Parts: sequence; structure tokens; C-alpha cells
Amino acid sequence: MTSGDILHMRRAIALAARGLGGTSPNPVVGCVVLDSSGEIAGEGFHAYAGGPHAEVVALREAGGRARGGTAYVTLEPCDHTGRTGPCTAALLEAGVARVVVAVSDPNPKAAGGAATLRRHGVVVDEGVLTAEAEEVNAAWLTFVRAGRPYVTWKFAATVDGRSAAEDGTSQWITSPEARADVHLLRAASDAVVAGIGTVLADDPRLTARVPTPSRAAPVLRVVVDPGARTPATARVLDDEAPTLVAVAEDAAVPAHLSRHAVRLPRVPGGIDLHALLAELHGRQVVSVMVEGGPTLAGAFLREGLVDRVVGYLAPALLGAGPAALGAAGVSTITGIHRLEFAEATPVGPDLKLVLRPKSPVSPEPTLSPEPTVPPRSSGRTSPKES
Amino acid sequence: MTSGDILHMRRAIALAARGLGGTSPNPVVGCVVLDSSGEIAGEGFHAYAGGPHAEVVALREAGGRARGGTAYVTLEPCDHTGRTGPCTAALLEAGVARVVVAVSDPNPKAAGGAATLRRHGVVVDEGVLTAEAEEVNAAWLTFVRAGRPYVTWKFAATVDGRSAAEDGTSQWITSPEARADVHLLRAASDAVVAGIGTVLADDPRLTARVPTPSRAAPVLRVVVDPGARTPATARVLDDEAPTLVAVAEDAAVPAHLSRHAVRLPRVPGGIDLHALLAELHGRQVVSVMVEGGPTLAGAFLREGLVDRVVGYLAPALLGAGPAALGAAGVSTITGIHRLEFAEATPVGPDLKLVLRPKSPVSPEPTLSPEPTVPPRSSGRTSPKES
Ligand SMILES: NC(=O)c1ccc[n+]([C@@H]2O[C@H](COP(=O)([O-])OP(=O)(O)OC[C@H]3O[C@@H](n4cnc5c(N)ncnc54)[C@H](OP(=O)(O)O)[C@@H]3O)[C@@H](O)[C@H]2O)c1
Ligand SMILES: NC(=O)c1ccc[n+]([C@@H]2O[C@H](COP(=O)([O-])OP(=O)(O)OC[C@H]3O[C@@H](n4cnc5c(N)ncnc54)[C@H](OP(=O)(O)O)[C@@H]3O)[C@@H](O)[C@H]2O)c1
Repeated sequence: MTSGDILHMRRAIALAARGLGGTSPNPVVGCVVLDSSGEIAGEGFHAYAGGPHAEVVALREAGGRARGGTAYVTLEPCDHTGRTGPCTAALLEAGVARVVVAVSDPNPKAAGGAATLRRHGVVVDEGVLTAEAEEVNAAWLTFVRAGRPYVTWKFAATVDGRSAAEDGTSQWITSPEARADVHLLRAASDAVVAGIGTVLADDPRLTARVPTPSRAAPVLRVVVDPGARTPATARVLDDEAPTLVAVAEDAAVPAHLSRHAVRLPRVPGGIDLHALLAELHGRQVVSVMVEGGPTLAGAFLREGLVDRVVGYLAPALLGAGPAALGAAGVSTITGIHRLEFAEATPVGPDLKLVLRPKSPVSPEPTLSPEPTVPPRSSGRTSPKES
Repeated sequence: MTSGDILHMRRAIALAARGLGGTSPNPVVGCVVLDSSGEIAGEGFHAYAGGPHAEVVALREAGGRARGGTAYVTLEPCDHTGRTGPCTAALLEAGVARVVVAVSDPNPKAAGGAATLRRHGVVVDEGVLTAEAEEVNAAWLTFVRAGRPYVTWKFAATVDGRSAAEDGTSQWITSPEARADVHLLRAASDAVVAGIGTVLADDPRLTARVPTPSRAAPVLRVVVDPGARTPATARVLDDEAPTLVAVAEDAAVPAHLSRHAVRLPRVPGGIDLHALLAELHGRQVVSVMVEGGPTLAGAFLREGLVDRVVGYLAPALLGAGPAALGAAGVSTITGIHRLEFAEATPVGPDLKLVLRPKSPVSPEPTLSPEPTVPPRSSGRTSPKES
């Protein structure tokens, strides 16, 4: 691995990041192609499901200059025929002499791109900037490796952790800038999840009120509502976006919820959140944002189902009132949920904090007793989902 | 005002900051002296009460080069004779032609340095970088203008605002790095204040376990203990530092507290905190750090007596347990205590937040009906306090 390799792979990762929020259920991928003298000849990224793959975009720009050159790809090139044909074939046809890969394809069934390239005499170097490239693809990798969507819990609170005053009033603790940022987060998620407590208290619309040009479908709204109590007049049932109401298997579902309801197993406290995420995984939901309230967020945390926490802290103090986080399964200090700060950025007058668990939650697929990855999930070219 | 003026004054402010924590009950002051050609000839700051003033240090270094030159001083030079003689005299004797001042002396009785210099033909420019220079002297200016110590409330909590788990266990939520930083904060304060609840629950020593070379006296420990319940065995009563136990005027004071107790008026909830701060002001306490607990911190906040909040947030979540801040007089959202983030810095794995009220609490002395400033408070040279 040379310093040039690191430089070009970092560029490829930056290109990949441009696809964030648009490629679901596909991963984000970036590619840089050098000519045989080491000059950059082409760049590309995967912009939306159904669009051309990063390698194809970069090779197209490089044209004949790719011959004898090097391709940096953030994810192992695919090796199976979809809408555009396998990327391995495109790389071979272009005459690329060396391919540098950051992350191997996590789906054992879909992998093999590196092997195919090597069989045709291409030098393949793997493992360059793997951690950085995994980070930009964290959602998709969790989706594939853990067999469930990547979960972000978002909250807004004062510095002392309150999300409303003693009498329940809360408009507005955080700034317009922070609220605009939440809409961007929503737009970059495949689904937004709220508990029935929040729906009844706030009647939120749960839509992303920002343009989402590359997204194929609007963000799915999900209400976790064991007793099927979502009222017919709830704004979350309007026509702005599709809505799923997750009810308990034994719930009496009123007519106005029949086309929204999905029945899931009951556990103490509500609905089995693992089953909910499996259901969403089956619907190709790669990432979800849990918007609260405190009870539901605490349950996700207790179940070890939070991959990222995004908190907006207002520079304010309340000293009383509902807490941003409810019971999360911790009774004594040794049970504390330890995370790491990944980011602390000003957003208007507020502070945006991003935290991640200390050890990644995603198990490697080899560790699971049975494959949890449906064949299509990493098949970035299957015509139906692309 | 030239860009050179701003540059040199900024340097003088940086010099002043080096005295922070050591000069009490004096202000911090920095000084830069240029020769007549505009070259830096001398620099100085006030390092400790009783030590030479910033102007004197800088003029000593400049020697004969000060003649016809310019002096930048963060605070209006003093005009009265103390241990070292007035700084105005030193500046005149050195033959300085121009003096640039950031902050005028807030004590009307002690002011007059600028006028004296002008009377002797020195050009005096005032108001250069006033806001920045006031910030570095915030504690002393509050002490002089508001007639009470500058109050910092410090807390440590999880991101969701808990300072202990549900069962009360809390060792350790924040990191050794954050705890070391707290000792620096204590060392830079003249007094550390805790409520009797904290003393009974945690038996803290409340000492600054870092070297404080320039500080004349150890940091005063203050327990706010209306009922005189501090036990004889409390570590806060050991010989490591002096301790004041603020009891209610009607309390029965046990023998072991007699040499520590000071009687103060009772108000609903405990002791009158305004009276407590007035008592500390009388003892030349310029800055205090309120270390908690949540009840006492809430009372300080409710009374509008917090000038700065320093929070150490651990990258962790609890979802239950005692809150870092107790009732602070807010029942509905319009009563929220609004502040501003002044700082957000990583300290080990934790995040250190510094917040300040949106509008400064310190009223100008002209606004108070009667002078709250004792003649000695800004008399930086009175032999007894210096
Ligand atoms: N600060 C913020 O960022 C923020 C964000 C959103 C909401 N909020 C506030 O939060 C408040 C509502 O919160 P909340 O705690 O009352 O309600 P919630 O968390 O929105 O919903 C809790 C409900 O979800 C259902 N649920 C289903 N499965 C569950 C499971 N596995 N574990 C736990 N609950 C499950 C239960 O419904 P059943 O009772 O029917 O069983 C439970 O009562 C509102 O006042 C809202 O303003 C704040
Ligand atoms: N997270 C942190 O940074 C931090 C820091 C320190 C302590 N703590 C924790 O806080 C807990 C103790 O806190 P706490 O709230 O119980 O006690 P506290 O705030 O330490 O003390 C409260 C007591 O102070 C007395 N007091 C006197 N004047 C008062 C006034 N004007 N307003 C309010 N109180 C006044 C009252 O005593 P009387 O009852 O005798 O009237 C009151 O009960 C401990 O568990 C400790 O571990 C946390």
C-alpha cells in the first residue's frame, strides 16, 4: 500500500459519500480510475438505485485511458449480471491492470469479484482504508451483516436532558436550524419510526420537508402502536408518504388502519422490536430513524438496537420536565450504555452530537448460524430493486 | 484604532490570561510596550496579588526604549499609591507618549488613570477590544460591578442528563481526564460551594488536587447547610483547606462546627443565596464554583446567580437516575433558562461544554442605587490584600 493508494482511496470514499441518502437499498460506492502513468482519468459514484455503478461511471469518463491503469473502488466490484452487467466485466473490458478494494463484499453468495478479476490476470489489492470505507457504508453493511436496518436514534433536549418543561410545553427548545437538520436526517433515512405516545401527544407528520431528488420512494413512516390506537385523523396517515402501523398480533385493528397495519409479536412493554426491524429489513428498509418518544427510544437502546445517536442540545436549562430518554434497561452504573462521541458541531445556536456504540453491533455474517442475508440485498443490479 | 492596535491589544489580553487563577482579589492585567518606532520593547502581566503590576513589568523590560513609545493595557492604569506606587506615575516617568486602554476602571472611586495621563500630555485611546478584554476579566468585573462573586456551576452527566444510575451509583460516569480538569477549575476559583445533600451523600474533600503556585491562600470550601448538619467526621472539615459552613440564623450549631459556621438569613428552601454571595464578597472571594448537587444548583439558577455553566458530558446513556439539575424555577417553556454555548471541547472521551447567559448578568455600577463596590475591591495595590 503506497501513500498514493491511500490518497486515491480517500477520494473514492469522498465520492461514495455523495450517494448517501439516494442509493438505498444499494450501498454507496465510489471509484477513481488512474491511467497507466498514474494520472486521474475518471471518477464516479453510485448515485441512486437503478443508476450506473461507480466503476461504470468512472470507466466511461476514463475511456481508452483506463487501459493498463488502476481502479480504486470502495466496495469489491460486483460479479453478477444485473441491469448493467457485472462491474468485473466492465473493468476487464477496459483493460484495467490493477484494482484496489477497500471493503470486500459482505455477502458470501454475491462475492467473488476479486477472484474473477485475479483469474483474468488483474492485480487486486484489498483492505486499503477499510475502516473509513466501512464507516461511509455503515447503514448498508449493518443491513447486510446484521440482517436488520441501521438504527439512528434522534433526540432534541436541553443541556440537562429535558425535552419539555414541567407542564409539557416544548415549542421550541431547539432552533429552526436544528429542525431543518432533522429534515435532512429524515430524508436520508428509508423509514422514520415513532411510538404511539408521540403520535397521540404531538400528532407529527413525520415527513422529510426537504427535496429528495434521487430517492426513489418517499420515506416510510412507521408508528409502533401495539393497541392500534392511531386515530383516523392522525396526520401520519395522510397521503404525503406511505405509513406502516405496527400493531400487536392480538390487536383489534380499526378499519382506518387496515391498509397500514402489520401484525407483530407482543413482548412485555409493547411490540418485539427485533421482529419490527426484521419486517422492515424484508421491505428493503436499510436505515431507520427513531424519533422517539423517550419510552420507545429507551426500548430500542435496551435491546441493543441503536447504531447511532444524534442529539441536538439547546443551550438552555430546565431543571424539570420530561426527560429525552426513558427507561433503557439500566438499574446500576455498571449497566450504563457506553458510546463514543463521533461528532460535536454547532447547528445554529445549538450543538449537534453524534455518538456511536463503542464496539460495532454488526456481527460478521460468518458468525450467524444461518444466513440472514436475502440474496437480493447486496445484488446491486437486480432490476426490481435498482 | 489601527490594525496594529488590535494586534498589540490582543497580545496584551493573552498576557493577562496567564494570570488567571492567581491574581484574586485583583483583576488580571496584561501590558505590551512599544518603542517610538513601533517595535515591541516590553511585555508583562499581573501574576499574583502583591506582585508587580503588568505595566511595571513591561516598562522594566522596555527600559529606556519606552520613551516616546506606546503602552497597551487591558485595564485602565491605576492612579493611586499602593505598595508599588500608581501605574500612571510609572508610565509618565518612563516617558510613554500614548496609552491604549481596553477596559475603563469599573470602580468610579478608583478610576481617573486615563484623566491623569491626559493631564500630563499623554495621548490616551480607550475602548480597544473591550469585549475580549472584559471576557478575560469576567470574574473580577462581576465582583466589582455586581458586588458579588462570579459564579460557575459545574456538573458531570451522561448525554441524557443523568448524574447517577437509578440505584444512585455513579462511579465513574466521566473520565479521569474530565476529573483532572475539574481540579484545575477548582484551583482557579477562590471558593468551591456544595450543598449539604452532596456532603452527606458523597463526603467530598472539595480540594483542588493540583499545584496552585501563585495562589496566596488555598481555595475556600463552602457548605450550604441550613440545619448545621455537617458531621464532625466530614472530610470537608479536615485541615487541607479552610471551610465555611453557611448555616441558617436560627440553627443550633454543634461544637465541631463553631469555628466554621457563619449565620445567614433563611428563605423558603434553605439559605438566602444572595446573602451568601454578599458574605463571600466581603471575604474578597472573587469567583466561586458551585459543585452541586442538583438542588443547590437549581436554586442558584432560579435566583439568576449563575454566570457560567461548565458541563462534562460522558458519551453514555442511562435513561433513569438522578438528574444533574434539580428544580430551577421553570414550570413552562417560556421560563426556560436560555444561554449560549461558548465552548465545546473534547476532554479525554468526554465533552466539556461551557455556556454563558445570553445577556450578561453584571449591571453597570451607575445602575445600582447605592455603590456596591467596597473601596478596596479594585484597589489593586492596597498592601493588605495584595
Ligand atoms: N425530545 C425529542 O426529541 C422527542 C421526540 C419525540 C417525542 N418526544 C415527546 O415524547 C412524548 C411521547 O413519548 P412517550 O414516551 O410517551 O411515547 P412513545 O415513546 O412515543 O411511545 C411509547 C409507546 O410505544 C409503544 N411501544 C410499542 N412497542 C414498544 C416497545 N417495545 N417498548 C416500548 N414501547 C413500545 C407503547 O404503546 P402502548 O402503550 O400502546 O403499548 C408505548 O406506550 C411526547 O410528549 C413527545 O413530545 C420528544
Ligand atoms: N453530577 C454532578 O456534577 C454532581 C455534583 C455534586 C453532587 N452530585 C450529587 O448530588 C446529590 C446530592 O444533591 P442534593 O440535591 O440532594 O443536595 P445538594 O444540592 O448538595 O444540597 C441541597 C441542600 O442544600 C441546602 N440548601 C441551602 N440553601 C439552599 C437553597 N437556597 N436552595 C436549595 N437548597 C439549599 C438544603 O439543605 P437542608 O435540606 O438542610 O435545608 C438542601 O436540601 C448527591 O447524590 C451527589 O452525588 C452530583
